[in-house]
Amino acid sequence: MQQVRVRTSATASDYSVLIGRNLLGRAGPEASRAAPSRKAFLITDAHVAEHYLAPATESLRAAGLDTSAAILPPGEHTKTLAQAGDLFDRMLRAGLDRGSVVVGLGGGVVTDLAGFVAAAYMRGVAWVAVSTSLLGQVDASVGGKTGVDHPECKNLIGAFHQPSAVLADVSTLATLPDEELRTGLAEVVKHAMIRDAAMMDCLEADADALLARAPAVLETIVARNVRLKADVVSADEREGGLRRILNYGHTIGHAIESWAMASGGQAGQAMTHGRAVALGMVAEAHIACARGLLSADDADRQRRILERFGLPVAIGGPIDADRCLALARHDKKARAGRLWFVLPEGVGRVTQTDDVTDDEIRAALAHLGGS
Amino acid sequence: MQQVRVRTSATASDYSVLIGRNLLGRAGPEASRAAPSRKAFLITDAHVAEHYLAPATESLRAAGLDTSAAILPPGEHTKTLAQAGDLFDRMLRAGLDRGSVVVGLGGGVVTDLAGFVAAAYMRGVAWVAVSTSLLGQVDASVGGKTGVDHPECKNLIGAFHQPSAVLADVSTLATLPDEELRTGLAEVVKHAMIRDAAMMDCLEADADALLARAPAVLETIVARNVRLKADVVSADEREGGLRRILNYGHTIGHAIESWAMASGGQAGQAMTHGRAVALGMVAEAHIACARGLLSADDADRQRRILERFGLPVAIGGPIDADRCLALARHDKKARAGRLWFVLPEGVGRVTQTDDVTDDEIRAALAHLGGS
Repeated sequence: MQQVRVRTSATASDYSVLIGRNLLGRAGPEASRAAPSRKAFLITDAHVAEHYLAPATESLRAAGLDTSAAILPPGEHTKTLAQAGDLFDRMLRAGLDRGSVVVGLGGGVVTDLAGFVAAAYMRGVAWVAVSTSLLGQVDASVGGKTGVDHPECKNLIGAFHQPSAVLADVSTLATLPDEELRTGLAEVVKHAMIRDAAMMDCLEADADALLARAPAVLETIVARNVRLKADVVSADEREGGLRRILNYGHTIGHAIESWAMASGGQAGQAMTHGRAVALGMVAEAHIACARGLLSADDADRQRRILERFGLPVAIGGPIDADRCLALARHDKKARAGRLWFVLPEGVGRVTQTDDVTDDEIRAALAHLGGS
Repeated sequence: MQQVRVRTSATASDYSVLIGRNLLGRAGPEASRAAPSRKAFLITDAHVAEHYLAPATESLRAAGLDTSAAILPPGEHTKTLAQAGDLFDRMLRAGLDRGSVVVGLGGGVVTDLAGFVAAAYMRGVAWVAVSTSLLGQVDASVGGKTGVDHPECKNLIGAFHQPSAVLADVSTLATLPDEELRTGLAEVVKHAMIRDAAMMDCLEADADALLARAPAVLETIVARNVRLKADVVSADEREGGLRRILNYGHTIGHAIESWAMASGGQAGQAMTHGRAVALGMVAEAHIACARGLLSADDADRQRRILERFGLPVAIGGPIDADRCLALARHDKKARAGRLWFVLPEGVGRVTQTDDVTDDEIRAALAHLGGS
């Protein structure tokens, strides 16, 4: 097992992310330390519950916690304000008070929602994230971002609320659908590109083992990603400076994701967050190449590892550039319609700018459509 | 005009509360400083809008802010998660981004709700409180507590989110209904009892001028209360230690309020927060007297000033002590069913304890019913 300590602001306590195999039994002890009133409220979804609800609940009860559970429908459409409202009802009925703990057991949807209800219930109770997806483990588990979606804007409503502890049990990745594994790998590639050239070497060397979900390799890679994200976030807890480098691939990626959703149909459903981020990274690397910031070799290296992980590097059809541009400006990361870009200067190095022109963005989108 | 600087935690900026006459024109300049993207979203209710929406909007627009407004139905029933959801829709449609500002113009209901949507929209945007009720000015304006009600628990859902500035315009108190003036005065008496014996002298000397809403006296008293609350809250931003003294009168007061609401009918509607707190203070002072902590003279002084302000010091009928006890234990300030009490040791001095017995509480409730 590996342990990464996350430093937070003065008002919140530091916490640990534990990364390893067969960690569900740690849920009880970790939650217990955060819950003086001995009550826990576990939130999960039906898919995760099938495999992991019993051992997680068992661990909480063995630690002496009076435990209730809410099992939600799986999927992003669960992450709504209405669902949060329903959870507040259940938490009140379960007798949760300020000394109780919320436990989120699942992927990013579940932990974002669990963290948000913990942030808002009685103006904030403790929570523990038990992350069962690769994306959740390498990304959502660090940074304290919690929230729910608005029909027209993902994560519109939320809070910064640090967990008391995070468990990243790589054994639980064995049951993760392939597509969700890929989504996590897209963020792993992003981390390598923005700050960790040596990790890119590891990914290239261990790609097969990662795709086969070899636990030892997963543990090493997850821990490396958690450490990287914790470094960035500790240096800049509230988005603003350094933390913005984590948005590499996301300016165009989010626009593509929103465009695909709005287009509906099969294309929309097939456009996962990971696929959109992969396409966003290819497009943003194209802008960097066109500006002479990034070599064609480095762009190609990024493209090859994405392909190796089964992620898309082109859109097999036309793309509505005007609509994508409008959606990007509508994104909550834009300020007064100005777009912020993170552009790679090499594997492991990026720069930030807000002077990318519409023509450059159009050219990058055409590049995605054309190959 | 008087200005009180409120020190907050390391993660939030300090802010000022401006107290004086005819301050609505300051709304624009204060909001403008908090809104780099030049967009403001004003939230108010229909009663307040009638008198003050035009000058407030005029001030925001004169400061160069692109301003939209939401006018809500007046009353506590507006402070719901559903109403917050509707405001998120409107804020998104109005194009509010992370650099925009929310302005709450109204009493505590409006500013609690405005602060909460500002806390949660895009995980937190700036907000300015323009407080038009005495309770809002002396209580809600300082401390950063924001939130909405659950049908079974007031302020169940919320956040700590400091405003960028607070305007307490005592001229707006001219149009405040009498009952709401009394509610504010109950908290003023509470402040005097917990920490400011000299203020009790002022209240006794200036009671008539206060009830006649003499602006100069209101300005002095509001500023004194803001300063007192800012001192307590700055020393202990998150409820825990010192801040708990602000709950004097509220342990039993909240239980009486919930009991009256649950009983419904005329009794429930007539039981304002201020009336409940007045009764709570009388009951808790009774416990302190019975323990020999407080002299009968000091308890009597509290009782007389409450009566002078038109606040109740007894319940004209039977009170269900069992139900009140159960409701108090259900309160979100209780931990694992344990009740925390703030007991006066004199005018301006309190102590805290969690060892008050059910019998003592029953005796205090009987004292309310019996006089």
